Amino acid sequence: MGKGTGAQAGLRRRNMALVMKALAAGENVTRAAVAAEVGLTRATVSTLVDELLAAGLVEEQGAQRPGTVGRPGTVLALSETGPAGIGAEIGVDHLAACAVDLHGRVRARAQRPAANRSRPAEAVLAELADLTAGVVAEAAAAGLHPVRTTVAVPGLIGQDRGTVLRAPNLGWEDVPLAAAFGEAAAVENEANLGALAELWLGGHDGRLTDFVHVSAEIGIGAALVVEGRLFRGARGFAGELGHVPVRPEGPRCSCGANGCLETYAGEEALLRAAGVRTGRGPALKAAAVAGDPAALRALEEAGAALGIALSGAVNLLDPQAVVVGGPLADLAPWLLPGVRRELAARVTDRQWRAQDVLVSRLGHDGVLRGAAYSSVRTVLDDPATWIRTVTEPSLPPTGSTSCSSR
Amino acid sequence: MGKGTGAQAGLRRRNMALVMKALAAGENVTRAAVAAEVGLTRATVSTLVDELLAAGLVEEQGAQRPGTVGRPGTVLALSETGPAGIGAEIGVDHLAACAVDLHGRVRARAQRPAANRSRPAEAVLAELADLTAGVVAEAAAAGLHPVRTTVAVPGLIGQDRGTVLRAPNLGWEDVPLAAAFGEAAAVENEANLGALAELWLGGHDGRLTDFVHVSAEIGIGAALVVEGRLFRGARGFAGELGHVPVRPEGPRCSCGANGCLETYAGEEALLRAAGVRTGRGPALKAAAVAGDPAALRALEEAGAALGIALSGAVNLLDPQAVVVGGPLADLAPWLLPGVRRELAARVTDRQWRAQDVLVSRLGHDGVLRGAAYSSVRTVLDDPATWIRTVTEPSLPPTGSTSCSSR
Repeated sequence: MGKGTGAQAGLRRRNMALVMKALAAGENVTRAAVAAEVGLTRATVSTLVDELLAAGLVEEQGAQRPGTVGRPGTVLALSETGPAGIGAEIGVDHLAACAVDLHGRVRARAQRPAANRSRPAEAVLAELADLTAGVVAEAAAAGLHPVRTTVAVPGLIGQDRGTVLRAPNLGWEDVPLAAAFGEAAAVENEANLGALAELWLGGHDGRLTDFVHVSAEIGIGAALVVEGRLFRGARGFAGELGHVPVRPEGPRCSCGANGCLETYAGEEALLRAAGVRTGRGPALKAAAVAGDPAALRALEEAGAALGIALSGAVNLLDPQAVVVGGPLADLAPWLLPGVRRELAARVTDRQWRAQDVLVSRLGHDGVLRGAAYSSVRTVLDDPATWIRTVTEPSLPPTGSTSCSSR
Repeated sequence: MGKGTGAQAGLRRRNMALVMKALAAGENVTRAAVAAEVGLTRATVSTLVDELLAAGLVEEQGAQRPGTVGRPGTVLALSETGPAGIGAEIGVDHLAACAVDLHGRVRARAQRPAANRSRPAEAVLAELADLTAGVVAEAAAAGLHPVRTTVAVPGLIGQDRGTVLRAPNLGWEDVPLAAAFGEAAAVENEANLGALAELWLGGHDGRLTDFVHVSAEIGIGAALVVEGRLFRGARGFAGELGHVPVRPEGPRCSCGANGCLETYAGEEALLRAAGVRTGRGPALKAAAVAGDPAALRALEEAGAALGIALSGAVNLLDPQAVVVGGPLADLAPWLLPGVRRELAARVTDRQWRAQDVLVSRLGHDGVLRGAAYSSVRTVLDDPATWIRTVTEPSLPPTGSTSCSSR
């Protein structure tokens, strides 16, 4: 254990997390500014900052710019060579991995096409582990210290965050992913990670805390963020926008019901309606850009269906905004008119505006960056514990992948 | 102020609230049992209990039953002559008021038919104040001490909890209800109070913390409870189940959109489909009991529409249960088959069962009792502040109606 009694250690741990958070949130921050921000004495903050500097989590960036009042302090920033969060992504036809630093910037990245639908889970996981090891090595070569890996999966994850219960588009049932992945890793649903990426890295400066995030690859992925936290529901099934009924007597859905949103706006339905036989989303986008009438009509109708399902969600949840992200964001110019028209007609809240439907700036990388950043957030949220595992190597590095792991 | 420093007073206040909560939750509770439950010393608990006894919030009920281990303690219970919470309800064609004690039991109640749709708000509020004053006097005569009044309104309430922004079924816009009601009163939407009544008084022993509550008088009222708290949404509009689209090309709704749940299961639509011209809900129920084919068909179709809208809600929110309450509960035998069939067909969560649709045991009184109990909960949540306002009468009794008020 660290110094002092348990209660003192707990207080120190909380204070260090507060200092780290203040450093993460601000720009050109000095020790004095941190002390003012978190309400601790200058001396306490200096001691904590010294520990963070020694551990390589924080770095000094020279004197404060002239023009500020009083004696200039030294500007502090999160380290660019501190811990790196690792994210890995299993798509239906690709694998990807990346490393982000404490700032959330991508520092290493790898991607491969892979026909994951037609392979056993073991083969997919072996290839993903190989890809991830390359990214880990690249991050380590750049002076970073890779920590925990988070794997994004298009499926339903068990409450242990280690098992994939069902991933219909991969043909998986009960795959113990975290265990199979070698060392302790976390597994998370890709729609959830897309929403968390938007919360953390979407460029909203912490002001967007309540939203519905919609993305799509094969199905419709959605997740709810409420008061700055992922809303999982009582049994972990919240956010199933794809199976909200749009027309109860509509086409049969893969889930067995009729007229779910997926039967109108899921990729398969959309490509069929547009008459696009190969090339998936990019081919559909190309057809829309070229002004193909079938593609334009299909996208208009899918947008309206999405708007109908979303108006139910907005009437129930009253979020600040709806965010369209992931591959769906590419199709936003053609989907959004229908989405906005239906929402404007159906939302009860008179303050709701068409501008409350946002398009994510994160593009296709949202899920992968969300996975990687959720790994490094374990250090941002509790730097003291990370320092302890690094400086006392006799302790097992619980839940983290050491930088030499493969 | 009370004894000791501000920090000590704060600690004492929190500890007293903990003791009060332990007494409210348990049966046949002794000082020793409370001490064990809340993790305070026997001596501290005894001091706090003495204060609660002196203030009349708690009473002794004689020795513990024989058969328990050790020296028998004195059994404590919340007082039956302590504070009373006052609830008042504005319906479209009735007014009601009641007083509940700390146990949530109704101790005084009054109700009048009233054609509130066709009267100015001032006249409605004057009559409600008169009705409420009678209930206050009756509660006081029974030895209770009436505190704050909460008024239930079928409309949208401002963030100040004092103004009715819109109540279309009453024809109200921007009515400053709390101010007009004489002394400081709280105003709350009736659907929210129905849901809170189910949470607090529904007989679930604290195990039901995440649910969708659906009731109906003219419109469809619904509210969401999440992690034991009312879920209001970013702007306070959450829970608008009545305007979730059921069939987007369906009948025109009063909100301007097409095919909202209200156009299928709202009272007006339901009575019209059933061919019931006078007598509203009770007449419809009588027709259903008599086996009238039009009434049975109308209820079956309304139940299915409710089930379609609720399956969207369940897929998005993944609650533990859906609770049907208020006047709608009377029609449950005819509505529920359709509700359950649609949910079973459309909910993605395979653990969802037909039994997860519950019928409230609170009947028509849910909203009124929820209003009254939300008033008395201010004392349960913070007994020290109530004691201070009672024992130091020089302080203004903020937010409470004294027992002599009219």
